[in-house]
Amino acid sequence: MKKTIALLPGDGVGPEVMKGAVQVLKAIEKRFGHEFNMNEMPVGGSGIDTSGTSLPDETLQMCKNSDAVLLGAVGGPRWDGHSERPEKGLLKLRSELGVYANFRPVKSNAAFQDMSPLKKEIVKDTDLLIVRELTGGIYFGEKTRVDERAEDSLVYHKYEIERTVRIAFEEARKRKKKLTSVDKANVLESSRLWRETVVELSAEYSDVETEHLLVDHAAMKLIQDPSHFDVIVTENMFGDILSDEASVLLGSIGVLPSASLREDDFGLFEPVHGSAPDIAGKDLANPAGMIMSAAMMLKYSFHMNQESEAVEKALQEAFNAGYRTGDMRTGKFQHVSCSQLIDQVVYRIEEDA
Amino acid sequence: MKKTIALLPGDGVGPEVMKGAVQVLKAIEKRFGHEFNMNEMPVGGSGIDTSGTSLPDETLQMCKNSDAVLLGAVGGPRWDGHSERPEKGLLKLRSELGVYANFRPVKSNAAFQDMSPLKKEIVKDTDLLIVRELTGGIYFGEKTRVDERAEDSLVYHKYEIERTVRIAFEEARKRKKKLTSVDKANVLESSRLWRETVVELSAEYSDVETEHLLVDHAAMKLIQDPSHFDVIVTENMFGDILSDEASVLLGSIGVLPSASLREDDFGLFEPVHGSAPDIAGKDLANPAGMIMSAAMMLKYSFHMNQESEAVEKALQEAFNAGYRTGDMRTGKFQHVSCSQLIDQVVYRIEEDA
Ligand SMILES: CC(C)[C@H](C(=O)O)[C@@H](O)C(=O)O
Ligand SMILES: CC(C)[C@H](C(=O)O)[C@@H](O)C(=O)O
Repeated sequence: MKKTIALLPGDGVGPEVMKGAVQVLKAIEKRFGHEFNMNEMPVGGSGIDTSGTSLPDETLQMCKNSDAVLLGAVGGPRWDGHSERPEKGLLKLRSELGVYANFRPVKSNAAFQDMSPLKKEIVKDTDLLIVRELTGGIYFGEKTRVDERAEDSLVYHKYEIERTVRIAFEEARKRKKKLTSVDKANVLESSRLWRETVVELSAEYSDVETEHLLVDHAAMKLIQDPSHFDVIVTENMFGDILSDEASVLLGSIGVLPSASLREDDFGLFEPVHGSAPDIAGKDLANPAGMIMSAAMMLKYSFHMNQESEAVEKALQEAFNAGYRTGDMRTGKFQHVSCSQLIDQVVYRIEEDA
Repeated sequence: MKKTIALLPGDGVGPEVMKGAVQVLKAIEKRFGHEFNMNEMPVGGSGIDTSGTSLPDETLQMCKNSDAVLLGAVGGPRWDGHSERPEKGLLKLRSELGVYANFRPVKSNAAFQDMSPLKKEIVKDTDLLIVRELTGGIYFGEKTRVDERAEDSLVYHKYEIERTVRIAFEEARKRKKKLTSVDKANVLESSRLWRETVVELSAEYSDVETEHLLVDHAAMKLIQDPSHFDVIVTENMFGDILSDEASVLLGSIGVLPSASLREDDFGLFEPVHGSAPDIAGKDLANPAGMIMSAAMMLKYSFHMNQESEAVEKALQEAFNAGYRTGDMRTGKFQHVSCSQLIDQVVYRIEEDA
């Protein structure tokens, strides 16, 4: 198959981990006989540096003309004084591309269970997927500042809730058939609309067990009993907070991928970790989150399940063989650099052929 | 001293744990020669049952005429179909009383460290105080529903931020002199006003180390390294989520108190746990959160530090002697009922006299 992929390395460790995705995709291309046409453009701080804006027009155009987008990370203190924030480019990109359903899977992995801040018996069976609404809510509502009064507006239309919740139900169906919808229906009107919409849709998905949790309760339950969850679906801001909370349960934020999708399977794929300016340029970053994001792209946007599994398998085997970056500190393993771990994964993809 | 205290037992386990506060206060009254004038009124679901509203006028009046208010818990599935939610009464009460600064301390306790879902080395030095803005933000903004569109508005005025942050700085000064302000300044205008206000005030509190964390990062850091924090100050909704998250770190939500204060030291004191309808009426609830809330009242509203410490000490000794309710499951201790634990605490306050 021929596919065009937009590469947006972004800032900080972004370019370093992006190399991992590119090399892995080249190995997949070769092994499975595909043709990946990959082109790189700036976004975030690097967009500000090169064109004065965090989402240059050409970058957006290239993304729109591609079959999928890979993004490294954006942001850093270097742009703190700048009138435009690097994050603005990312938010605009999500919105312009209309990738409203953000998937963040968190799955326990025997290879690095020791890294968790939680007790082993609590985390060992964690296997959850957070589906976060990504292009609506308070992120994109009107913002005003008049004198000493600031206002943000949280708006949801039913259709925005419906399309995201539907995708979440579909995923639950493919998994353990359990959906937890998170809201704050005892306080927010938008949450009451959210809950009503989920209740309505649940009639269509009677094979999926549906439950409703208040966001404060969900924040507790995630720590007390993460294996309680299968698929969690929630609005943009709650999803931001809960998915970051969930990402540290296993102590392995560096290995976590994310996918932001719309109904035609076009998607934006990025690691959960940020730009980590403190270690940027030192070849210390963990490329696993980016590599796993590329694997998600193969699966969700290109429906290349075998290819996606080949990437996952190679990464897992590299981990099992003891190759780990410094953030995966479990004491007993040798620490490798970002590029060394990439080499180990690429080599295993080629070897397996 | 003579003090008038409004008692609002509320719903579920509320009345059971409230008995603990009352008995403890009677023991303190006797031992220290005070006169506590305590009167009980309905709120929440019990308000709906008795007067058709979750905050009856007489209840509010009594609270306004008291020196402090103790509240048990509100809510439960019994009022699910009702047009008014029990929680509405609590929100209105907070707002009408103007208790804008909500304190939620979370402190590790050697007596029940095993209960934590986190590894011991991670939680053992936890000693943090969350100061949550309680009477503003999206909880109290305009709410609208037009056709299939729902909107909530998040408004903050600078003076609301300032008075809460000031109280947080004052507390930090009495503690480890570190303040973490939590916002989402990379997305929300209200958070930008929040951050600017904290930066401004920090000039007045140069003896306190101030840091700013995004709410998603704070949700991670709380789990990865809770002892990083001293005082955390944040807006209403973020405070709701983060304080509940923090409350389970030690596995001891049943023992946690809260205080909601305004500048004249008038306050509303309630345990962090909810109404727990599943165990209501069974004498199984943990009265410690309510008893500790009464201790906070003695300290913050009445400036009775010795009295407050006497309560804390008696509770701690009862725990150390092995008296624990069922939620504090650490295996090796005998489980006592709610009323048995109350008796053990009261007896120790009297004994010590
Ligand atoms: C960078 C920031 C605007 C972004 C968000 O809040 O959505 C990030 O935290 C994320 O979760 O992808
Ligand atoms: C009952 C509910 C409205 C309340 C809140 O969200 O403030 C509760 O969760 C709390 O934290 O005290």
